[in-house]
This record gives sequence, structure tokens and C-alpha cells, in this order.
Amino acid sequence: MNRFGTIFSLTSFGESHGPAIGGVIDGMPAGIAIDLQEVQRQLSRRRPGQSAVTTSRQEADKVDILSGMLDGVTTGTPIGFTVANTAHQSDDYSEMENKFRPSHADYTYHIKYGIRDYRGGGRSSARETVARVVAGAFARQALATLGVSIYAYTSQVGDIILPGPYTAYDLSAIDNNMRCPDECTARRMEELVLKVKSEGDTIGGVITGVIRGMPTGIGEPVFGRLNAMLASAMMGINAAKGFDIGMGFNGVGHRGSEMVDTFIPGNPDKIATMSNHSGGIQGGISNGNDIYFRVAFKPVATLMRDIDTVDINGKATVLHGRGRHDPCVLPRAVPVVEAMAAITCLDAYLISKTRHI
Amino acid sequence: MNRFGTIFSLTSFGESHGPAIGGVIDGMPAGIAIDLQEVQRQLSRRRPGQSAVTTSRQEADKVDILSGMLDGVTTGTPIGFTVANTAHQSDDYSEMENKFRPSHADYTYHIKYGIRDYRGGGRSSARETVARVVAGAFARQALATLGVSIYAYTSQVGDIILPGPYTAYDLSAIDNNMRCPDECTARRMEELVLKVKSEGDTIGGVITGVIRGMPTGIGEPVFGRLNAMLASAMMGINAAKGFDIGMGFNGVGHRGSEMVDTFIPGNPDKIATMSNHSGGIQGGISNGNDIYFRVAFKPVATLMRDIDTVDINGKATVLHGRGRHDPCVLPRAVPVVEAMAAITCLDAYLISKTRHI
Amino acid sequence: MNRFGTIFSLTSFGESHGPAIGGVIDGMPAGIAIDLQEVQRQLSRRRPGQSAVTTSRQEADKVDILSGMLDGVTTGTPIGFTVANTAHQSDDYSEMENKFRPSHADYTYHIKYGIRDYRGGGRSSARETVARVVAGAFARQALATLGVSIYAYTSQVGDIILPGPYTAYDLSAIDNNMRCPDECTARRMEELVLKVKSEGDTIGGVITGVIRGMPTGIGEPVFGRLNAMLASAMMGINAAKGFDIGMGFNGVGHRGSEMVDTFIPGNPDKIATMSNHSGGIQGGISNGNDIYFRVAFKPVATLMRDIDTVDINGKATVLHGRGRHDPCVLPRAVPVVEAMAAITCLDAYLISKTRHI
Amino acid sequence: MNRFGTIFSLTSFGESHGPAIGGVIDGMPAGIAIDLQEVQRQLSRRRPGQSAVTTSRQEADKVDILSGMLDGVTTGTPIGFTVANTAHQSDDYSEMENKFRPSHADYTYHIKYGIRDYRGGGRSSARETVARVVAGAFARQALATLGVSIYAYTSQVGDIILPGPYTAYDLSAIDNNMRCPDECTARRMEELVLKVKSEGDTIGGVITGVIRGMPTGIGEPVFGRLNAMLASAMMGINAAKGFDIGMGFNGVGHRGSEMVDTFIPGNPDKIATMSNHSGGIQGGISNGNDIYFRVAFKPVATLMRDIDTVDINGKATVLHGRGRHDPCVLPRAVPVVEAMAAITCLDAYLISKTRHI
Repeated sequence: MNRFGTIFSLTSFGESHGPAIGGVIDGMPAGIAIDLQEVQRQLSRRRPGQSAVTTSRQEADKVDILSGMLDGVTTGTPIGFTVANTAHQSDDYSEMENKFRPSHADYTYHIKYGIRDYRGGGRSSARETVARVVAGAFARQALATLGVSIYAYTSQVGDIILPGPYTAYDLSAIDNNMRCPDECTARRMEELVLKVKSEGDTIGGVITGVIRGMPTGIGEPVFGRLNAMLASAMMGINAAKGFDIGMGFNGVGHRGSEMVDTFIPGNPDKIATMSNHSGGIQGGISNGNDIYFRVAFKPVATLMRDIDTVDINGKATVLHGRGRHDPCVLPRAVPVVEAMAAITCLDAYLISKTRHI
Repeated sequence: MNRFGTIFSLTSFGESHGPAIGGVIDGMPAGIAIDLQEVQRQLSRRRPGQSAVTTSRQEADKVDILSGMLDGVTTGTPIGFTVANTAHQSDDYSEMENKFRPSHADYTYHIKYGIRDYRGGGRSSARETVARVVAGAFARQALATLGVSIYAYTSQVGDIILPGPYTAYDLSAIDNNMRCPDECTARRMEELVLKVKSEGDTIGGVITGVIRGMPTGIGEPVFGRLNAMLASAMMGINAAKGFDIGMGFNGVGHRGSEMVDTFIPGNPDKIATMSNHSGGIQGGISNGNDIYFRVAFKPVATLMRDIDTVDINGKATVLHGRGRHDPCVLPRAVPVVEAMAAITCLDAYLISKTRHI
Repeated sequence: MNRFGTIFSLTSFGESHGPAIGGVIDGMPAGIAIDLQEVQRQLSRRRPGQSAVTTSRQEADKVDILSGMLDGVTTGTPIGFTVANTAHQSDDYSEMENKFRPSHADYTYHIKYGIRDYRGGGRSSARETVARVVAGAFARQALATLGVSIYAYTSQVGDIILPGPYTAYDLSAIDNNMRCPDECTARRMEELVLKVKSEGDTIGGVITGVIRGMPTGIGEPVFGRLNAMLASAMMGINAAKGFDIGMGFNGVGHRGSEMVDTFIPGNPDKIATMSNHSGGIQGGISNGNDIYFRVAFKPVATLMRDIDTVDINGKATVLHGRGRHDPCVLPRAVPVVEAMAAITCLDAYLISKTRHI
Repeated sequence: MNRFGTIFSLTSFGESHGPAIGGVIDGMPAGIAIDLQEVQRQLSRRRPGQSAVTTSRQEADKVDILSGMLDGVTTGTPIGFTVANTAHQSDDYSEMENKFRPSHADYTYHIKYGIRDYRGGGRSSARETVARVVAGAFARQALATLGVSIYAYTSQVGDIILPGPYTAYDLSAIDNNMRCPDECTARRMEELVLKVKSEGDTIGGVITGVIRGMPTGIGEPVFGRLNAMLASAMMGINAAKGFDIGMGFNGVGHRGSEMVDTFIPGNPDKIATMSNHSGGIQGGISNGNDIYFRVAFKPVATLMRDIDTVDINGKATVLHGRGRHDPCVLPRAVPVVEAMAAITCLDAYLISKTRHI
């Protein structure tokens, strides 16, 4: 239940306010040289406190690798790791012990388990994604040896939509606070987020993911479709409410004749297409084109205002807005989307190796 | 790879033009009385040849249950079943042996496996969903004993969009050709489909699914989120390109303060909310509200026209439009969406039973 | 629960007295030419009615392959199959509806499920192994392309023990009724079985399995040890009560210095050993030597005598011995042991392909 | 690959000489009060340096629980834990970098992965069982709430065999060095081990496990048989070479009429039997009797002598006996057998909850 992946998998553990978040990466291929500074760099991209548009919590988020490597190279044995929780202040959350935050997991955990770690959201905290980013950083380095590269960026915040398709931008050099590849749009997004923040409110948006260089033939037909694996990966991220691939929801109004990706005659082992409406996957299997997809994120319900709610006895009460929270989770969710894409792609690639003897 | 589900699962088999499609339902709870006529009725809803808006292929699609029942009651052992393929005319497809249909799985299967059953799309044919409908019909009857009911309907075809939310319609009595709950919209959709058909073209759309009566506390946090399970289920359906839940993509432009589902003080074991923007799931776990979601379907690429394409040697050729195909897959996909939702919900329910000793 | 295997897997279904036994083989590698007559030949080895030492039930046991092949070659898609149940006479078993056979699964199924298919043991009947033999026959043909061959034989019946180790016999040419590679021992075993049969009793024994040509490096350390996979496979066979590998139980009385398999200096990629006490597996991973193991089978409890037992109300009653049963299951279990070994080895081999990128 | 269990599972990580061994316990039922001192006590039973018959390595083996508990009670979320490796002296093992120890996993890991952590056996070290003991201690406390208790003891060392069956001894009070319930036999075993140790040699033996109070109806028919799950669990322990249950290998020489466990008329919900030759499991499902089984352990190949072997180039060399090792692994394997039995039983129990809606 806390494992993602079949052959390459992450089993994660940890609550927001326990001693550590961590996990076990199983199925890591042997013999991959890992740049641990790059793993750390990915973690730092996810870390709070990076700018005014994210929460002001400051966490060092240093990963400790406990197994599975020898002299910087993976040995094929599982990689255990922990990231200590250092910045939490438990008193911030004492109010939550007896109150349910609306549109959060407090009530559903309470009903499901009969007990919940109320400190900072416990297991339902987005801090859990720390483990995914670590596993994704390992997967990404394995995929790089195959020529696969993975990008994600903020393509919408509120009603501000990045105008062009992913092909219009340089995805390898996004370094603004919003993680949006167009500086002008990024600035407008940032203004909106700061305005929303000043109102004690939050705002949602869309992240676009792009996978380049995926070999052809990856993904299983029927239930293990690569698109279904990606959907499961993305919808498992906190606050994600939607996923589509290729033309997705925007393609449904078109005719089939407009949406056909016509083949270009050529080398029969590597047949290209004139368009890529399918988003790089046909029949659940990669066709060699770029894979691109969108993930919708709701505006999170943690407001910096007093909110009417109920306590664990069902009585009306007020929850006082405080703590340190993201007015917009998109910028920090970008490395999480990339990480989940990397985990999924490496897993699908390794499974595909078993289709022939 | 051909299994869906963890505790309650379907393992399916079969190609479009082999002797039979079938599967094994494992993990069916013991002691459930099954109405086999209702199973057959669900299959008939999926069957081609129902109206002018679907393919004219006529298939009886009669299910044979081979195991797992005694005197109409499930025994807890696996339910094997087959549905014979009776209507296929292999000569329809001889052209496909050496040509790849664009935006289909022909090329990706060819690259992945080095061999493909070209007759009627083989395993990638939507005929495979027959097995899902059978398994879904069993799951649905088990869920009914818990008070869970599942609905789906066509909410968009091309640019014709059903105006109201799901709560505006009677979902238990949809019997028009388009499986749209509003007669007026259904007629407009049907006109569009017939027009598209007359042009030898196809059109996409959106199906909305609704799950009522789901107990609170179902779904696992983190990777086994009920929304992620549903996303995986739906994105594994042929031609599905997008999924969202609750306000989904339409919610990203709103503020958090608008999207909060405020609790109504009351019985602490069953706390209701004033709104249901979340779509019945919070933190991956059902909260007792209706679960509603959308699935985007692309316009399929099988046109009744000649199409430029390539053969297996990469040479340019023309594929002649013929055979019998759906100009719009939505009406027949409705029972498949319902079936996958039922399989997912029963599986999630059974998993949730293991959270306490 | 009715699936065996991770990548190459069998999901089986069927009761003794339903319309058919069958299953789905998933993960079959693509491009393997399959000799279906050889599949049928393996089924016939398992079939009852072969000689006086087995049950007199006559079943044709003809397998119908429903999917996953094109022109005799596997396509990589799942192989569905059924074997019709033709020989059953339901009236033989009417007595069982209300009585529990001692040392059978009747009572435990009754308690577990609250309902049981009492006809011929239902799902607990050894007839279920039909599905394993079919899947094993596919696995074996895939393994043959790697140079792997699998043998099993009866090495003990009652107190008659085959004197030599497996290396003393020609395992490729065992065709006597007992499936024992030494004619003289086979005769003595057969005499014992006929004597036991004449007394309306049954007798147990041991089957030895041998896997030759397994590549080095197959099997996972820790929980996926090849020996643990084999143990699980063998202990899942009806009436199996014990498993050991290499020197097994017979090695525990020895000193470590006697049991070391000393390396022979030579080619570092293929280092041989002077002895093979380990049975071809070290640290859970194949080392290139023959893998050999034993499986203990209890004397089954279906006697041709009247037996004191209880009915479903817990009252004392007598069960009348009749029907057609094996006085010794060993000869017919030999192809089942081989089949389970083949399924396990192919699965382990395919998993091992994922250890490197 | 490094996960054991389906619903209740352990995913373990760690090498002998890395910073820590650890794991993630997933599927722990919510609401179980855990005595962490008891967890620590189980770890201490496994720890080296307890007596002259075990290795003289001294390790504190203190477990750090990182998640999944609130105020001493499980929350249903995964339990991450680590046990630091404190006692290792890496220079002890420098010789192993270029030499393969015979009858160890050195060569097979080398071939499988192309790289291996040679320090102290790395992942193949029995130190990995630390993680199992921790998970087992949690499982055991959950099982205790159901009235299930688990025992194991040394029943054979070399040719010294404990004379009586498990019912002849008080299993709750075994505290001698050999973990054998009969003081007299224990003394003889200890003398043998000390003699073997003085010769720089090792010796094998048998551990018997007993599970009392297991509810009836636990275990799945066909592939998820409780006996097959136990076999897989036990054969996954380092140095285990055999497993049998009930009368096992010793029952094969008997007649069926001798081995029948005759029912005693009485309460139909809880029918007892006159004997328990089956070992508490029939048709793969627990029948309410004690479950008892044996596990054979080989004499390990780590001798305190110089041994002829080869280096990684296949050249002849000599491995110098030194370091600190167990002349007989049985006493320290007893808590590991108990732990694996507990993990298996809790997992099987939780799975069984899903058989009814």
C-alpha cells in the first residue's frame, strides 16, 4: 500500500513530524554510477523556503543513503535511505489534535484507522514526497544511461495559462520561482500567487510533464498501459485531481481525421509520425515520440485565515489559520512530477525486458 | 501485466479474432448470490450492433461461467469464464497483415513483440473489454450488498456538452442510444455522430462516472489512493486519454477558499459537508460523499476512408477504409467505465478490511 | 490467491466437477514456437487411468488454447486455455454434501467460506493440477531454448527407497508405471502399491526433481531466493508435506568442512565446484550446477474403506469408501513437480533480466 | 524482491558493513499497542555474542522506530526502522575483495550483479535477518491480540536429536544457550558445538516451529496455501535447506489409514481431531490445531581454518580462516524462525479477512 512500482519500486515511510521520512528503493539495476550531489540537488528543488511563493518552513532535507551502493555505484541490492525531519515545531499543530481541517485527510484518516498522527498532517503531509524525489533521482540517473530525459514545468496557475505547447520552450533551463519556462508568464503567475498569499488564500494550477528519448515498445497492453501507469503515478501526488496525455481533454472535440498521427515512410525499425497528438503512446506502448502529459492540482485547503470546521465530536469550531504553508504548491510539485515520471518509466522499461527470453 | 486488481482481480485473455475472450476473476467474496442474467445484460450493453451510432458488427456475446459458483452463489474460488468470438470475418482484416494503421497499436506491438496478431487488432482490440464487463458485473453485485451503486453516462460528444452536473439528472434510467441522461442533448449528440459517420470520420467525447453509497474510509493513503486506483482503471480503457475527479481540471482556476468542502456539525461518525468539490475522496480515502469523475476519449483513428500509411517495410501505402467500426465509442464505453469502477471499488473495499485486525 | 508467479505467471480456475479446468498464462515471452502436441503429451502423463497403480478414472484431458498464439508461435499476449471435465459422475459424490472427509479440505473450506463445492473435492481436488501441467509445458519449451531441462522421478514409496543419487540414473528415459528410473526398484514399488490398493489403503513417498542447464545468476537474494521459490511451488502441490534441496535434511548431521563445495580453478566466468552439496543454489542464486530437490508426499486420506467421520452438524457418521482414487499419488505427481519447477525457473529467469539496464 | 508478504509485508534493506540495516513494515493493522522493549528483547535474542556457542561479535543492535506509531500505538501507516551497524571492523574482510568463499554467495552475486559488497558478505550476511526479527516482533504482538503464540526451538544439532515431539516440552521457558527445551539434550548439543568450534569447524541441525491458537480457516487454497507460505518464509532464511510440516518426510512411509486425523463429533463450528499428523493445515487452510514444522539448517561454510578456493580471476588461492563466526547457527536462528512464522501468519490472517464482504 506504501509501495509504488513492480520491478523498480519505492516503499516509503514517514510522517511529517516523526524523526525521519525515508524509504527503500528496490529493483535498482546494478552497476549504475550515481551522482549523490545530483540526488541532493533534486531534494533541494522540492524543499520549502526557496522563495516568497512557497512556504517559509526551512528544512535542510539532507538524504542519508544507508545501503545498496559501493564506491558510488549501485550493487543491485535495495537502497535504504532516510531524510531527517529537523524543522518541525510540534506546538504549531497542537490545535489539530481535536479538530478536522476541511478538505484535508484528517477526517478520512480518523474514520479509516480510528487513530491519526495529527501533527502536521502526519502521513498525509506533502512532506512524504521527499521519498519520491530521492527514488526519482536514482531512476532518472539510470534512465539517463538510456538517453531518456524528463522535464516538468508549471503551465497554468489560476487562470494564467502558458500560451505555447511544450515544444515552444527550452525545458532544460527553467530557474525562476514558478518553474515556468516563459519568463513573462512566470512573472504574471508570481504576481498572482503573491496576491493570493496576501489574502491568506491559495490557488491551483497545471503542471506539464515531458519525457524525451523513451525507447519504443515500452509499456504493456491492456492493464499495464504506460499511460495508465503514469496516471496512477501522478494521481497519487498530494492535491492532484486530474491527468491527461497527448491531446487529452482538449482532443475530444476533434474529428478522428484531424487527430491521426500519420506515419512518415522510412526505416521500418523507427517509423516517425508527422504529428504527435497521441502523446508518444499508442495502445499503451511508447512509439518513440515525446511523451507529454498534464497534471491538475487543486488549490490546497490550508488557508491563512480562520475557518469554520468541526471537532472530533462533530461540534462546530473554528480552526485558526497559522503555520507556514504554500499559497501555490505548483513550483514545489514540479520535481515530484518529474520523480514519479522517472520511477514509472524505469519500472516500465525493466518490465519490458521480460517480454523476450 | 494482464491482471487488474490486488485482492479482487481480473486476469483477462483473448484476441479479437481468436476462438474466445475470457478471464479469471480471483478474490470474489464467498456467499454472494449472482444474477447471471444481469451479468449477461451488462455484456449486451457493451455489445456492438445496438444502434446506428455503433458498429454494425453483430455479436451474441454470451458468457459461459466455468467455475466458482454453486447453485447461483459464489464459493470464494476463482470464476473462470469465456465469451466466444462468433461474428468475426477474418478476410476483413487480411490487408492489415502487412500494413500499420496510424494511431493504432499495430506499430508499437510490432516493435515490442516482433510478432502481432493483425486480425482485427488482436489483443489491442476494444473487444478485450468484454472480460472487464463480466468481472465488473460480478463486482457490482457484491457492492450492491453494501449499498454501493455505480453509474456512467456520456457527458460530451465533440463540442456538445451536457449542461448540468450529474446531480441534475436521473442516472438510473438512461436508455437512449447515446447513453446521455438528457434526451435533448442525447438527440443533438446522435445527430452529430450520424453526420460524422456519414463523412467516414469519428468523434471523441467525455464519459462521467458516479459512485454512490461508497462507505467512508476506503482507499489507501500515498500510493493506493482511491483516486489513483480509479485513474489507472480508466486510463487502461482503449482510447481513454484523460481522467479527472471532483472539480478536476475545472477546479484549478479557483481559490482554495472557494473550493473548501466545509463540514456540517453533526454525528461524529458520519460528518457531512456542504459541498463536494473534492469528489468524495480526501487524502486518497472516501469520505462518504458521491465519487464523481470524468474520462476523456479521443476520436478513434479507424476511419471509413482511405488513409495514407506505411507497410511493415516502412514503405508508403494506402489503407482502405472498410469493415464495421464505431464512429463514436462513447455509448459502448459507458458500461466499460462502470465495470472498471466496480472492480476498483470492490478491490479497495476488500483491501480496507485488512487495516484492522 | 490463485496466481503463481511474478512475471511469468499462471492464474488457474476450476473445480473437479464443473464444466472445465483452465487458466491464463501471463508473461509468456514472445516469439517462442510451441509444440502443442508436447503440451498435450505432458497432460496425458498427468491423466488418471494410465495403469493399475493409478485411479481408474478415464479422462481425455484435451487442452484448448484460446489466445496468445499465431501460427504456432507465442505473441507475448496471455494464453487462455481450458480443459473440459468430461469423466465425472456427480452421483459418486452426493454423500459428501453433508459429510466431511477426514484429513481433507472439506472442513477447512466449510469454515473458511461458509460454502463449498462438495462434488469431488471441488477446488481442492488434485484435478486442479491440470492447469499447472499446461502452464509448465509452455514454460518448459521456453526454457529449452536456453538449454534448461527438467526431470522428476519417484525416489521413494513407503519404505522402498531408490538407492542411488540422481546422477546414477538416466532421467530422460523413465517410462514405467511408477516413474522410477530404476526398473528393479520400480517393480518393488509397484508391488507395494498394488498390495496397499488391495487393502483399500494408500501410501506416500518422495519425488526427486532435477533441473539441468540453469544459467548462473538466477534467483534473488533474501526473499526471492530460488530455493524459496521452489519450496513455495512444491509445497503448493496437493498432498506435499516437505521440501528440501541439495543435501537438505540429510546434510544437517555433517560438519561444514565436509559440506563445502570447493571451487575448481578455471574460467572466472564459469567456475565449477568439486561437489554439489548445495544443490546448485548458493545465497539463493543458481551457481551453474544441477539443481536437485526432494518433495515429500503424504499418503492421501481417500481410502477405499468405510471411515468414521462427522457430518456438517458435528454428528458421528460413516463415510463409505468408493469412487476411483489413487492408492499412491506419486506417479501422477511427477509431471506436476516438473511443471511447477518449469514455471518457477522461467519466472526467476525473466526476473533476473531486470537486474541490469 | 526484497519484500516479504502481501498485505502485512516487510521490505528490508542493508548490508552487513554499511551504516545500518533496516526496513519498512507495511500493512501493520492500526490500533495495536506495541511494547517496544519486547521488540528490543527479540532483537537481543538474535544478537551475536550471547554465549560461547555463538560468534563473539558484540553488537548492541538497538532498533530505532522512525514512523507509524503514536504514543505507543500503531497508526496503520508504515513503520520505518533502522538498526545501526556498530561492531564491524572492515579490515577483517579486506581479503574477501578478490576471493570467493566456497559455498557462500560471493561467486553467485559476482556473476549476477557484476559487482558485490564483499565486506562481511554484504547483503548475503545473516545480519540481514535483524530486519526480520523487528518485523516479526510487531507481527507477534498483533497476533497475540488474537490469541496466537509462536515458538521455535533447536530440535537437532549434528546427530543429537531431541527425543520427544513438541508436545513433550514446555516451550514457553527455554533459556539455555542452545535454545533446546530439554536441559539434558541441550547440554549434549552444547558439548558437540564446543568440540566442533575447537576444530575450527561448523555443524548443522534442525529447528522446530510451533504455532498455537491460529484461528480456523486461515490460508488460501491452491497457490496461497499456508504451508506453502511458511515454506517460502523458512527457505528464505540463510542456511536453510529443508522444510516439512506435520509428519512431513517422516510420514511418507506410513499408510493413509495410519495418518488420518479422525474427527471427534462435537460443536460443528469447532470440530477437533483425535490426532494431528497434518500439522494443523488441511488443503492449505488452518484447521484449528497446532501448526508444527521443521527447518533444516546446513553447517555453514565459514570455517576457522585455511580453505582452498579461487580468486575473482579463477586462480587457485587460500582463504585464511579468521573473523568471528558461529560454529552452529541454530540458537540464533530460533528467533528468526519465530519472526518469519509471525510475519507469515499475520499476513495470512489479514488476507483471509477479504474472503467475505
